[in-house]
Amino acid sequence: MRVREAAALAKAASREMRLAHTAEKNAALEAMASAVESAEGEILTANAQDIASAKDSIAKVMLDRLSLTPARVSAMAAGLREIAALPDPIGAVDRVITRPNGLKIAQTRVPLGLIGIICESRPNVTADAAALCVKAGSAVLLRGGKEALQSNIAITKALRSGLAARNLPPDAVALVTDTARESAREMMELSGVLDVLIPRGGAALIRTVAENARVPVIATGAGVCHVYVDAEADMDMALPIAVTAKCSRPSVCNACETLLVHAAIAPLFLPSAAQELTRHGVELRGCEKTLAIIGGKAVPASEEDWATEYNDLILSVRVVASASEAAEHINRYGTGHSEAIVTKNIATARRFCEWVDSACVYINASTRFTDGGEFGFGGEIGISTQKLHARGPMGLEHLTSVKYIIEGEGQTR
Amino acid sequence: MRVREAAALAKAASREMRLAHTAEKNAALEAMASAVESAEGEILTANAQDIASAKDSIAKVMLDRLSLTPARVSAMAAGLREIAALPDPIGAVDRVITRPNGLKIAQTRVPLGLIGIICESRPNVTADAAALCVKAGSAVLLRGGKEALQSNIAITKALRSGLAARNLPPDAVALVTDTARESAREMMELSGVLDVLIPRGGAALIRTVAENARVPVIATGAGVCHVYVDAEADMDMALPIAVTAKCSRPSVCNACETLLVHAAIAPLFLPSAAQELTRHGVELRGCEKTLAIIGGKAVPASEEDWATEYNDLILSVRVVASASEAAEHINRYGTGHSEAIVTKNIATARRFCEWVDSACVYINASTRFTDGGEFGFGGEIGISTQKLHARGPMGLEHLTSVKYIIEGEGQTR
Repeated sequence: MRVREAAALAKAASREMRLAHTAEKNAALEAMASAVESAEGEILTANAQDIASAKDSIAKVMLDRLSLTPARVSAMAAGLREIAALPDPIGAVDRVITRPNGLKIAQTRVPLGLIGIICESRPNVTADAAALCVKAGSAVLLRGGKEALQSNIAITKALRSGLAARNLPPDAVALVTDTARESAREMMELSGVLDVLIPRGGAALIRTVAENARVPVIATGAGVCHVYVDAEADMDMALPIAVTAKCSRPSVCNACETLLVHAAIAPLFLPSAAQELTRHGVELRGCEKTLAIIGGKAVPASEEDWATEYNDLILSVRVVASASEAAEHINRYGTGHSEAIVTKNIATARRFCEWVDSACVYINASTRFTDGGEFGFGGEIGISTQKLHARGPMGLEHLTSVKYIIEGEGQTR
Repeated sequence: MRVREAAALAKAASREMRLAHTAEKNAALEAMASAVESAEGEILTANAQDIASAKDSIAKVMLDRLSLTPARVSAMAAGLREIAALPDPIGAVDRVITRPNGLKIAQTRVPLGLIGIICESRPNVTADAAALCVKAGSAVLLRGGKEALQSNIAITKALRSGLAARNLPPDAVALVTDTARESAREMMELSGVLDVLIPRGGAALIRTVAENARVPVIATGAGVCHVYVDAEADMDMALPIAVTAKCSRPSVCNACETLLVHAAIAPLFLPSAAQELTRHGVELRGCEKTLAIIGGKAVPASEEDWATEYNDLILSVRVVASASEAAEHINRYGTGHSEAIVTKNIATARRFCEWVDSACVYINASTRFTDGGEFGFGGEIGISTQKLHARGPMGLEHLTSVKYIIEGEGQTR
């Protein structure tokens, strides 16, 4: 369906969703889960078509993201049921202010309305995102990548049938099937229709949307994350944090891209770190001081390296003179996503947390925990790297707005 | 100063402001207040220049907004001291989440960074907005209207000297002195520099900024507000609410623009309302049913009237068949700002509050209370009519963001 047509239907559906009760939304999410299970064959067939069309033109890692299996379809259904089980954020009263003139002001949680999502190739994002939006009392207008089109059509067909089965409007999950580049642009111009637009995907997509949209945007994702090993670090803690933050899943946004090491500990730490990282197949790109210590195991880093999100088994390494120099490096080259300090000195740790201007700052733990599930939010729609509305992992509560309901006895002004 | 130059200085200042302690910020606000008082003569002279240049080219109501008096300068200083006395929102811990793996996640309040404000002719907004931004640990880049340029230069000079006197960076209050139309456009393009841009002024300005900015925006202000008089209204309550909501200050965004009256009470209510409103000099524009009741006192309303923010002594009036028809009218023609229902039936009131999709919904009170001061926020930077980040009156707390500080003992993933 074309953008404006799908958006108009979804906008109308959002007005019904706004008034849906918790029980209705949960019943619909359960029905959506069952519908996804029933449609497994259809979804896998559609996905096979997508794979067949894409396999010669996209990279292997992208092909893996695109691929669905019976296990992944089951996981999608399980995800829908998990979201049904979460507490409903809508209707909660944040606070009641009683004013001297007798007015009672209740700040209540309400749905955002119509949420636009532009995503790239992972079709399981479709079910996740739709479930969060439905639970939050909103409608969603989804535009996936063209590689995933048949999969997305099959998945949303199932989701929509689940909504219809419980008398909620199927257009609360609306898919834009026009995947021409122009259709993303059209979504960015839906002012007065989309209450927010969330791009999920690579840095180029996010930048394009943030800079060109005429509707409110939440920029997510891009992560040049740092691990800083302080002079007073526990080496037995620093090594596994640095290695797993880089290696456990290098393609994700919370993986470490730059290792910063205090000069006092570098001669001790870097050789063993380099050995372990190299063993995991990591290419090291170091500053001059790094090269002086682990020369054979690293190539020189360029200025560009410090600002690069590799999403791959590559790590830039820099020796710094202090925690404050580490924080300065992070504030200059980072994307404000997630950073870690490893130190036994709690005063240093606190200062580092204050200096670093990022969404998440870890003391003695890996940056890889920046995730809605790991934070206990029960799911996530993305990681915000902006300061407005939401910052860090965004769960259900971040898909809500407020309304003030004020009760009086005839007060005028 | 030109936009990019002023913005770069303010950005650097914002990094210092982020780390300023409460006592430092409060001392600076006190010093800013004293500096404004000391500069009274200079500010009034500058304002007289602005008035002299503008008096032949702008409307009388605008000229009044532009004019400063000794009393208004004192009020500006008092406003700075009031903001100094408010609790500091920065550093507060919203919540601590302890995860099963032992991670302790503290959600803390942090400054937004650099806040851009584009405003029109009222020079007292300059001091207010600067004070709120300073208290919230941010820097502000202000661009006022060209009519107020000399006044704004004099006011910001005083504010900056107050900051400097307490060793905070004067560039935390930066004024764009290039008031060519192009400079507003340049502010909208400061991506990566401005953390948020807030337009304060007329509907055209707000729309232009919301649709063209490449930075996050909070749209404020435009208010097509409604008062709905239900069939079960207390007439003695409905009349003063309707009259004051229109007449007490017709130029502001929370003033009533459309009166909706239930058909069952209209024959009783409308004649006395029309008499009272006419006595206050209000021009009435009614629907057909309204004209049938108060024919001589109203002219016919056009379709355009329902969507117009008059900001003047004009009121559109419509007779509706039910509270739900009133809510539909509001959701169709309103701007999502403030609406009121007058009724003795609490069930009707609750349903009306649920149906109406606006920032503030009043039961038996005037829409005129939508204001940061009236809500007890101690000041306001504007009224948000969008759903993202902040909705309704925005005080200090809405000028903050969050940072997660996570403490571990070596957790990896």
